[in-house]
Amino acid sequence: VGVMKGVILTRIPGATIVDVSHGIPPGDVRSGAFALRAAYRYFPPGAVHVVVVDPGVGSSRRAIAAQAQDCFFVAPDNGVISPALAQAGTTSVRQITRTSLFLQPTSRTFHGRDVFAPVAAFLADGGAFDTLGPEIADYVRLPLPGPVRTEHGWEGEVEYCDRFGNAITNIPNEWIAGANGWQLELAGGSRYAIGGCYSDVGEGEVVGVPGSSGFLEIAVRNGNAARVLGLSVGSIVRVFAGGETVNRHGGD
Amino acid sequence: VGVMKGVILTRIPGATIVDVSHGIPPGDVRSGAFALRAAYRYFPPGAVHVVVVDPGVGSSRRAIAAQAQDCFFVAPDNGVISPALAQAGTTSVRQITRTSLFLQPTSRTFHGRDVFAPVAAFLADGGAFDTLGPEIADYVRLPLPGPVRTEHGWEGEVEYCDRFGNAITNIPNEWIAGANGWQLELAGGSRYAIGGCYSDVGEGEVVGVPGSSGFLEIAVRNGNAARVLGLSVGSIVRVFAGGETVNRHGGD
Amino acid sequence: VGVMKGVILTRIPGATIVDVSHGIPPGDVRSGAFALRAAYRYFPPGAVHVVVVDPGVGSSRRAIAAQAQDCFFVAPDNGVISPALAQAGTTSVRQITRTSLFLQPTSRTFHGRDVFAPVAAFLADGGAFDTLGPEIADYVRLPLPGPVRTEHGWEGEVEYCDRFGNAITNIPNEWIAGANGWQLELAGGSRYAIGGCYSDVGEGEVVGVPGSSGFLEIAVRNGNAARVLGLSVGSIVRVFAGGETVNRHGGD
Repeated sequence: VGVMKGVILTRIPGATIVDVSHGIPPGDVRSGAFALRAAYRYFPPGAVHVVVVDPGVGSSRRAIAAQAQDCFFVAPDNGVISPALAQAGTTSVRQITRTSLFLQPTSRTFHGRDVFAPVAAFLADGGAFDTLGPEIADYVRLPLPGPVRTEHGWEGEVEYCDRFGNAITNIPNEWIAGANGWQLELAGGSRYAIGGCYSDVGEGEVVGVPGSSGFLEIAVRNGNAARVLGLSVGSIVRVFAGGETVNRHGGD
Repeated sequence: VGVMKGVILTRIPGATIVDVSHGIPPGDVRSGAFALRAAYRYFPPGAVHVVVVDPGVGSSRRAIAAQAQDCFFVAPDNGVISPALAQAGTTSVRQITRTSLFLQPTSRTFHGRDVFAPVAAFLADGGAFDTLGPEIADYVRLPLPGPVRTEHGWEGEVEYCDRFGNAITNIPNEWIAGANGWQLELAGGSRYAIGGCYSDVGEGEVVGVPGSSGFLEIAVRNGNAARVLGLSVGSIVRVFAGGETVNRHGGD
Repeated sequence: VGVMKGVILTRIPGATIVDVSHGIPPGDVRSGAFALRAAYRYFPPGAVHVVVVDPGVGSSRRAIAAQAQDCFFVAPDNGVISPALAQAGTTSVRQITRTSLFLQPTSRTFHGRDVFAPVAAFLADGGAFDTLGPEIADYVRLPLPGPVRTEHGWEGEVEYCDRFGNAITNIPNEWIAGANGWQLELAGGSRYAIGGCYSDVGEGEVVGVPGSSGFLEIAVRNGNAARVLGLSVGSIVRVFAGGETVNRHGGD
């Protein structure tokens, strides 16, 4: 990834370049999409977000760029930017066909360096978005399932596990805010309290908390919830108001 | 952590931001404290050091900022900056209560992004330290045990294991400098030579060396001393002048 | 490594510093050499490349600097920069003896911080290369074996495994370009197709592709080739035109 920065700096000396995350598992488009959606809005207006979670590199998958209210995105057309686009007030998505911007020779295995980095530099330098290629409407949308209504609450799933092992769900914080006594149920039927923060429970105990990405997070205080509770992307999570039994420790 | 940089860059375009270390195990306040104390003094005057080793985030633990002779610190009040403060000639420590600087809404799980990053940007931009909140004297001090005098030398312990597996102790280089024939003794009674550098011994052999952080380091040449010798934070290390038996390889 | 940036920024406020790679295994000079040679030419003219793959730190190994057509290198004299030097049109290599540039006291275990970083800052700031020390001709060359001609093609070896598990060989893309029907043979006699890109084969299948570093790469689509095929640095790889049997999956 340092090479991509070299390419950008060659075209824009002194450019400010930030690594948003290196923690995305190779080829995991869904985790990449989640991390991008949680992060992009904390960057300055005009930022160009480049995404290289690209398992289909070299195939016929398209390269795309998008213009949103306050920022740009440059990425493979595999859905990785679609959740962010849905949220960011996107005004236009274009297929990148202006190959004269690319590094020559253009490899078929490292488009991050040869395609995305130079296009990002072009946009960051004030290049005209409209000149990148034709506008498209059929870019890939990642099916990000929303939570489903249940009798007493919602059934959602784990969207992402961060490097601390916290499991972030697709249940918005607002849906469970203000409702005292909400509980969390995992596959197998174990139930846990939903609190305000990690330290509402004792060392090693399980707690649901309103997460910093805007969604309910499942944590083990000073522990790794994903490992302790066997959670991974797609694990089912239910929340409901009321209820009686609450476990405190994982693994039972 | 990329998000924190976004927050800072939004407030100070073009700010210079450096990752000191990503190698601190999650929630390991003591290792974080060690790494910070070893690193802070190599940064330019006026640097603002932000620390997010924060297992108590969201609890009632305070957020603090400190002004030292040449730099600032912004961190949770869990002791992680206290060893650096003791060394840096700290002139004032304040609890951060000026919530108008925080990102809104302020999450209870990611103060790095919502509290520490904007406060650091404020200080880096020349904001007045005095306006952050009330001065405090009772900030948390980490108990960093010093070495104890023994009949023929010192008994200390391992403070930190770096990513190469070198085990850094709390015994200052100066205490064993100039004394020829110093030796190292680990739990179990194995003894090893103290040399000038890693390559004073053969491939795979154990050696004590004056470390780059200012403290005695236990290394295995081109190997991982922590793993080979079973060392971890808190392992007992003795040094003494003279003695006869010297092992050369770990694990015996 | 953050500390090295601190040292550079102390001497050149606002310097642009890029991490090329943190993925080099500790002390692996050959992988470091490979990664550097693949990356250096993508950086702006005048860039100073600092390399700290330095298993011999503190020994009598020399510190060297090199001036090439478009850039500088600063590194230990252990061969890590020699493949890049061979390619970069190097005009001069000097032993670094101007100790007044070093940080004082100069540790014997962390020359990255105390020697290489300040010398790199000196060069990046326009300091005269000629003043670093005497010109030398006997700097260490890493023996990078080239592929050997066989009856129907070439026998080479794996030079580097990247973080996705792709195994990059020392067989140049050009040597197998344009020749339809080239195949790949690994130790044990398994044969695989050489294609244009990862997605020329199905999920989990093995393919040889012209790699982004300019050399033949062995990949498993959306998988880890090094692990699946048991490849590591030095593994033998044969390519040849024609042939009949082609396996598709690793491990059989």
